[in-house]
Amino acid sequence: MDDALEQLGSETVHHGPIVDVSIKRYRRADGSEVERQVVEHPGAVAIVAYDERFVYLARQPREAIEEAGSLEIPAGTLDVAGESELECAKRELSEEIGLAAEHWSVSHVIYAAPGYSDERITIFEATGLSDAPGESDDDELIETVRVPLVEIDAALAEIHDAMTLVGLLLLKQRLAAR
Amino acid sequence: MDDALEQLGSETVHHGPIVDVSIKRYRRADGSEVERQVVEHPGAVAIVAYDERFVYLARQPREAIEEAGSLEIPAGTLDVAGESELECAKRELSEEIGLAAEHWSVSHVIYAAPGYSDERITIFEATGLSDAPGESDDDELIETVRVPLVEIDAALAEIHDAMTLVGLLLLKQRLAAR
Repeated sequence: MDDALEQLGSETVHHGPIVDVSIKRYRRADGSEVERQVVEHPGAVAIVAYDERFVYLARQPREAIEEAGSLEIPAGTLDVAGESELECAKRELSEEIGLAAEHWSVSHVIYAAPGYSDERITIFEATGLSDAPGESDDDELIETVRVPLVEIDAALAEIHDAMTLVGLLLLKQRLAAR
Repeated sequence: MDDALEQLGSETVHHGPIVDVSIKRYRRADGSEVERQVVEHPGAVAIVAYDERFVYLARQPREAIEEAGSLEIPAGTLDVAGESELECAKRELSEEIGLAAEHWSVSHVIYAAPGYSDERITIFEATGLSDAPGESDDDELIETVRVPLVEIDAALAEIHDAMTLVGLLLLKQRLAAR
């Protein structure tokens, strides 16, 4: 924890399948005390997987925002004990897109909603792709969508998932610099 | 709601100062039924305010991620009854940065975490800036940071808030196209 923030107490007020909610109390650098509602999330990984022609996305239902087909980079929650971020990313890329990748690097680490949630997402870039179909969860209806790199702008216009926008805007920047 | 998703029921299981949590049940297009934990948020606005030389950011404590000084675009929750998104954005720009803007446009609408949260953020671009100091909330310790447009890349390297990354990457793209 940052030296300038001291946690004074925490009480879990809700347990759920994806997130818990706690009420936490902190002392700030100026001595003031504040209480915060904190959504506690195990963290996640996401993958920008691309080759010379395509970036590989997943379209899936997102009930929370009432969207039957949200276009996103493949991603998954760190919900397997002992699994590293990179192992989780490799598993998700196989399960959601049916691909393996030879080269992995961290593109950026983001926080989804730092005002009230601790969710941290490590966005990887994955290249050197090959087929590697994996088994997906029963209740996931995921369709793979190959977006031509030259059509990223058209895809960005219909994408509203923050993590995906960050991943693809950083990819676009990297491709422009080549 | 999207025709392909039918909500069958919803039960609020947690009430909090910023978000509530509900357990919702849906029928999908393929007839399958799923249960989802949904974090319910009133929605938010964020502002990319810039002039010929600077983009104006706010540095503030984000206790949820144990960060004493998170660098972000100014933003606020839609928590005033009857206030429109644009009115909220104008108020937040004044309160957090001390500026008013003549020209407003929507840059992008994003969802912070569509896998489990309904939080929708409208990111505005604001130009034609002038001084307009507003009163900020008592418990907000906000420092205004002017980032030179030519130094956006250095700022992006230290920014981890997803909303801010989207706003600034889109700004960078727009400036490059001029």
